[in-house]
Amino acid sequence: MRVIVVGASGTIGKSLADHLAKKHEVVRASSRKSDVLVDITDAGSIRAMFETIGPFDALISAAGSGEFARVSEITEAQFYTGIKSKMMGQINLALIGQHYINDKGSFTLTSGILAEDPVAGGVSLSVVNSAINAFTMAAALELERGLRINAVSPGIVADSVASIGEFFPGHYPVPMDRVISGYVKSAEGILTGQVIKVYS
Amino acid sequence: MRVIVVGASGTIGKSLADHLAKKHEVVRASSRKSDVLVDITDAGSIRAMFETIGPFDALISAAGSGEFARVSEITEAQFYTGIKSKMMGQINLALIGQHYINDKGSFTLTSGILAEDPVAGGVSLSVVNSAINAFTMAAALELERGLRINAVSPGIVADSVASIGEFFPGHYPVPMDRVISGYVKSAEGILTGQVIKVYS
Repeated sequence: MRVIVVGASGTIGKSLADHLAKKHEVVRASSRKSDVLVDITDAGSIRAMFETIGPFDALISAAGSGEFARVSEITEAQFYTGIKSKMMGQINLALIGQHYINDKGSFTLTSGILAEDPVAGGVSLSVVNSAINAFTMAAALELERGLRINAVSPGIVADSVASIGEFFPGHYPVPMDRVISGYVKSAEGILTGQVIKVYS
Repeated sequence: MRVIVVGASGTIGKSLADHLAKKHEVVRASSRKSDVLVDITDAGSIRAMFETIGPFDALISAAGSGEFARVSEITEAQFYTGIKSKMMGQINLALIGQHYINDKGSFTLTSGILAEDPVAGGVSLSVVNSAINAFTMAAALELERGLRINAVSPGIVADSVASIGEFFPGHYPVPMDRVISGYVKSAEGILTGQVIKVYS
């Protein structure tokens, strides 16, 4: 398959792209240091990415950010960081990409454990991750040409414990190879409309 | 109690405000024809509403809109209609309102059945409703001063079948008094962090 990995310079994306490259033709996309540069907060940039890359069979996104802030202090602007990036950025990858992807292709987005297992300061990411899960469930029922879409919802990945582990007290880290297996299940399998939970 | 009903000129909001007024002091707020006018897509307007109304014990929102459009055609702008109104509008009612509400007060937002039971063209509302449910679950764990928050998730209400029933094939309408009971359970009860499903 020809697979686009968006967020290929991130913690998960880099490991994922390296793994997939053993078996597939991988096009690495991200905001920096990749085959193709893309700003997922900008629909025009997403469109340009697809025009540059041409036909593909699978898109996997491990891209998008959000801000940690307590409910008592979080601002509307902090909420919109995650809405514009991890939420609408990834939703736009699928909405725009549906017109470029090959028949029977698949989209795999990334949500996360905070959708159902909140932590202090994580409210905007609980919202964003749940939004991605709901988009996946609903969009799968309308996609045409045999297209599929799933979300991988990882717990905190072992490789991220040093940088953000303090925000996830008591969360048991998930090994990177287990997280990668979730993306492989989505892209190489037959599931659609599923939230593939990689934790518990 | 002193209860603010936001969206008091809407289908659910009007019936709800009339019901609550038998027992509570109700302040009706909406974008038109109410005691207080508020545009929930504008944080400044929400802040002005709370300054005008003064102390209160409960806020119930049955406000906010979203757009129906198929996955193959929906635009980013159509998605943002729901994000700015039903999603961030209601989230801002709680985020801003937490600094005005009396101790042990409650917020009740409105999501909807599309969060888990999609219909054709409803993708943006599936996303928005799930976002509201997730906000409720996460925010409840951080609210201070004994404040509570819940979401009421109604199925299609009987009173709306004539106007939007065509979008909900096979959805069994929920009587208005049953929908109202969900809001009463949230505002007069002790629940917090719950999605009160008024269907099935």
